[in-house]
Amino acid sequence: MIENNREIKYLNKINSPEDFKAVPNEEMPAVAQEIRSELVEIVSQNGGHLSSNLGVVELTMAIHKVFDSPRDHIIFDVGHQSYVHKLLTGRYQDMRDTLRQSGGICGFTNRAESEHDCFGAGHSSTSLSAALGFAVSDKLNGSDAYTIAVVGDGAYTGGMIHEALNNCRKDLNMVIILNENEMSISKNIGRFAKNLSKLRTSPGYFKTKKATGAFLRKIPFIGKYLFRFVLGIKKAVKNTLYGSNYFESMGLTYLGPIDGNDYEQVEGLLKEAKKLGESVVVHLKTVKGKGYDPAEKAPDIYHGMSPSASKKQDKRTFSATMGHIVTEMAENDDRICAITAAMCDGTGLCEFRDKFPKRFFDVGIAEEHALTFAAGLAANGMKPLVAIYSTFLQRGFDNIIHDIALQKLPVVICVDRAGLNAADGATHHGLFDVAFLSEIPNLKIYTPITYEALKIAIKQAFDEGIPCAIRYPNGYESQDIVDEFYSSNVHSSLGAVSNFSVDDKVDAVIVTHGRIALEAIKACKALKQKGINVGIILLEFLKPYGECAENVASLMPTIACPVILYEEEIRSGGMGMNLYDKLVNLDIMKNKNIQIMAVDDSFVTDRKKGEAIYTSAKIDADSVCQKISELIK
Amino acid sequence: MIENNREIKYLNKINSPEDFKAVPNEEMPAVAQEIRSELVEIVSQNGGHLSSNLGVVELTMAIHKVFDSPRDHIIFDVGHQSYVHKLLTGRYQDMRDTLRQSGGICGFTNRAESEHDCFGAGHSSTSLSAALGFAVSDKLNGSDAYTIAVVGDGAYTGGMIHEALNNCRKDLNMVIILNENEMSISKNIGRFAKNLSKLRTSPGYFKTKKATGAFLRKIPFIGKYLFRFVLGIKKAVKNTLYGSNYFESMGLTYLGPIDGNDYEQVEGLLKEAKKLGESVVVHLKTVKGKGYDPAEKAPDIYHGMSPSASKKQDKRTFSATMGHIVTEMAENDDRICAITAAMCDGTGLCEFRDKFPKRFFDVGIAEEHALTFAAGLAANGMKPLVAIYSTFLQRGFDNIIHDIALQKLPVVICVDRAGLNAADGATHHGLFDVAFLSEIPNLKIYTPITYEALKIAIKQAFDEGIPCAIRYPNGYESQDIVDEFYSSNVHSSLGAVSNFSVDDKVDAVIVTHGRIALEAIKACKALKQKGINVGIILLEFLKPYGECAENVASLMPTIACPVILYEEEIRSGGMGMNLYDKLVNLDIMKNKNIQIMAVDDSFVTDRKKGEAIYTSAKIDADSVCQKISELIK
Repeated sequence: MIENNREIKYLNKINSPEDFKAVPNEEMPAVAQEIRSELVEIVSQNGGHLSSNLGVVELTMAIHKVFDSPRDHIIFDVGHQSYVHKLLTGRYQDMRDTLRQSGGICGFTNRAESEHDCFGAGHSSTSLSAALGFAVSDKLNGSDAYTIAVVGDGAYTGGMIHEALNNCRKDLNMVIILNENEMSISKNIGRFAKNLSKLRTSPGYFKTKKATGAFLRKIPFIGKYLFRFVLGIKKAVKNTLYGSNYFESMGLTYLGPIDGNDYEQVEGLLKEAKKLGESVVVHLKTVKGKGYDPAEKAPDIYHGMSPSASKKQDKRTFSATMGHIVTEMAENDDRICAITAAMCDGTGLCEFRDKFPKRFFDVGIAEEHALTFAAGLAANGMKPLVAIYSTFLQRGFDNIIHDIALQKLPVVICVDRAGLNAADGATHHGLFDVAFLSEIPNLKIYTPITYEALKIAIKQAFDEGIPCAIRYPNGYESQDIVDEFYSSNVHSSLGAVSNFSVDDKVDAVIVTHGRIALEAIKACKALKQKGINVGIILLEFLKPYGECAENVASLMPTIACPVILYEEEIRSGGMGMNLYDKLVNLDIMKNKNIQIMAVDDSFVTDRKKGEAIYTSAKIDADSVCQKISELIK
Repeated sequence: MIENNREIKYLNKINSPEDFKAVPNEEMPAVAQEIRSELVEIVSQNGGHLSSNLGVVELTMAIHKVFDSPRDHIIFDVGHQSYVHKLLTGRYQDMRDTLRQSGGICGFTNRAESEHDCFGAGHSSTSLSAALGFAVSDKLNGSDAYTIAVVGDGAYTGGMIHEALNNCRKDLNMVIILNENEMSISKNIGRFAKNLSKLRTSPGYFKTKKATGAFLRKIPFIGKYLFRFVLGIKKAVKNTLYGSNYFESMGLTYLGPIDGNDYEQVEGLLKEAKKLGESVVVHLKTVKGKGYDPAEKAPDIYHGMSPSASKKQDKRTFSATMGHIVTEMAENDDRICAITAAMCDGTGLCEFRDKFPKRFFDVGIAEEHALTFAAGLAANGMKPLVAIYSTFLQRGFDNIIHDIALQKLPVVICVDRAGLNAADGATHHGLFDVAFLSEIPNLKIYTPITYEALKIAIKQAFDEGIPCAIRYPNGYESQDIVDEFYSSNVHSSLGAVSNFSVDDKVDAVIVTHGRIALEAIKACKALKQKGINVGIILLEFLKPYGECAENVASLMPTIACPVILYEEEIRSGGMGMNLYDKLVNLDIMKNKNIQIMAVDDSFVTDRKKGEAIYTSAKIDADSVCQKISELIK
């Protein structure tokens, strides 16, 4: 098979793990090479995660050689390192054609996609808990199936892994693979990473394959890959690695570390681990971006890529703008601190980090800690800002309630990637933040949709002296909105704005917030063509909803017309329900039919091929047009 | 001062930490004794936590002797071990009179209550994150104030502590006190506890004060309490305690372990820790219930006490009934598993544990792990039930979304302590579960209010094969409701029931669920006296709300009347808003004014003295009567 001048020798014939098992071991280097070149090709076509997948090529191959999926359960911590697994389980052609596209292969493991994806994971640090569930149930049912959890070192900065380790048992057929690649999404901060990194300078460690070979030959015992299990070597390596002692203290057998990019070594070690028939930690060291020079040199840039992006995107985004604004403000206020949970670049805080390293905190993949740490800073007089993606903020729900809002501590929570995020799919939609934040007393919610409004929101939030959330979408260019709503008008404080006056004769009004305002504008334009005149009210903050409703009422036309409360968030508990609850009692609304359009009790998972995300969620401009046409009939 | 024949010598004169500091050291044993006897007295009068507070008497005294609150920040992990701290910071008389009463002293630390409660905590494992916030901001501001975090060993089963440890820095004036008391609320399960307990049998450890003394004398170095810091002893104790190596590997100086009930030792060690001027872990071993024989022998029973409860309550509760039902069902279905997060007794699962130890899992204070572990079990064909208090389930919000509901895994989530929990206060209200669960697609929500309905709900939930939540209140006797609604009628499946027929002439209808139905009945009876005829519709499940609305509609009278959607949950996103959203479109509701009564954007914190919790939240029977009277005018 020839693909764009590349000859494909293996992947086109691998329709199942059995096909892969049949490939002779001497051809593994060639298979690895083909996988790497196809990974680069697929990701440059479709976008996605490159570095982490290049790092686990040999590991994933060895897992499928030694274990039997789907009978054995392979669980990836954060499924974005599962591309090689997908290639080896009959999804090569689909990966090429549809990775991360609508109706296509998901960028993470997905139970609905394949029996080989036994557990889905778009959020970090869940794998060991799930793996324990699989392994314990197999034990209860008398099955001797294996459970393999592939866990990157970054995942260990998340508390759940430690909760799971605390519940590990020796009597399970469980292989925990600690994949040390020196980097989670941002460079790992914290002790865990530091302790692992000690290995690199310790005498027992080897950097090159050559050194590895020499090291291996020193071990005079069956199972040449079985290091730490061998008493002779045990003492020597002991105390160089916190990890080793840690896992052993957790009652687990610990094997490694070995070079995780050496196929032969990895297969050998996994075979030994399998033989043990008990819970075992296998420590590998892999190189992110392995085999692809640009990615190896700058794995952070190649962590997640947009389609055909070979250079870092530097266009203005809400994230970058937020980061710039807070950096500027921090110059005049040394109480301002910024916190990220392993997403410095993603949340736009690198400028802050570089300018104010002492007031910048990357806490690892630890959203709960990030928020409570911020609460502690605020309780002691600082002005902390925490920037977290909407989907990951779900993890800090209790911390916002119990540590921040209940104590009325002035923490500014920047909710990045709010709303639907098409390419990453259901695990990454920012679908719930409006609902779960609206529930929380003492909290104000801003929804700026221009960079100017974002700046005012951050300033207001710091000035409020109460807990505030500021939500905004991913990489959004807002010029359209600026033109429509703001023209020359510059606010000093945020409320709501409209593109019509209360005396205008409108046929319907759309009340909306966030990026989906663009769809509202689209709908307006389309309806205008049919002679239907629709006004838009854009909300700059949501909560307190009483105030929000007053702002809306002050912009509302006096004549009777339908009003659509329109957002790209979950309907239950969202802006629509909360605002309806307030509006329904206002006089100006008595002659108006209020309807809600939002994501109705759905995760927005089932996109058809070529279908836009808003269409799939039934909240696109066409749906708005249809709804309004029905209402004004 | 004489209190009920007990002579009070110290506490009545201690109005601040300064007063306590002035008490000479030789009188500390007498102070400790007085504190203990007052603790027993106060808790037997007011209910509350006894064992944990008896254990930390000397520790808390020493902290206040060595450090200066409020300049230094003292943070308790789970504030229920802060009673002694409250006694020493001017709250003795208030503790006696009002502990855990309306308008009185909170059973946890509370920033609103005293400047000495610098951070509130009703949920576990938050202290280190908050402490880092205090310590880091002091460092940034050039303050040399100390931050002291008192952390029980149970807290280490929660992931947040590990997230915080991963972010610890050596350069802070922070003293982390590891209070090993061999028990969190249930007996600690897991490796952390096991590793700590090794100490007790290791040669380096001492059980009695005598042995301690001998041990101490062996250390030939300044600071006789400074153990592990001293090189000579370092090797000997090394590897006996996972904890020691763990903390040191985290870059922290580690001191201990010592007998935490020996005042002199504790004060000495804290002084040494203070001198170091860097982040340090101080490991103490204390005895829960110390000094009070019954509590020392059965610390779990004396963990949390009801007023004047000297024996364990064994009356029927929803928790116990749930536990019994699932145990019975597990006899005929060996796929059923039960999981608790350190609340075996509280959630009623002890019967299950005793009968099916292999299928029972106490995972520690690790709600996130509990839910994802359950997801793993379910993905592998088991039928897991997880029982968690409503307030603690907030921690598992993302796990329910990302691991359970998104993957449609059939986990049964029992939401215990749903609704307001007066005595424990705002940190323990089950105020948000309806809202945050209603948002989640693919999830069914049951609200049984009789034990019979609970049984059907559990059976249905297991049969559904989808994620289900079953919510019920704390220790609730439902006979009233049974009489009103069920009489001889026994359901085979759950829906909604009413105490009137659709043809009845009613003046208003209350739609409600959960324990607050009792208030609805109270209101009905009161209104009846005034000649106002009110019907009640009781919901047995909430979600899917479409179905719920249909059930309600089928019971709704045809005549025009106001309808009140009434619950003890947060209004935003609760039953009221969700049901309103569905009902408003139904024909039968066109002639009805629908109103919502729920907790409106409030944490329900500010109770006046003697005020009932429902009154404080403005959702008591009187409020209902008033609302209905207004509506039918």
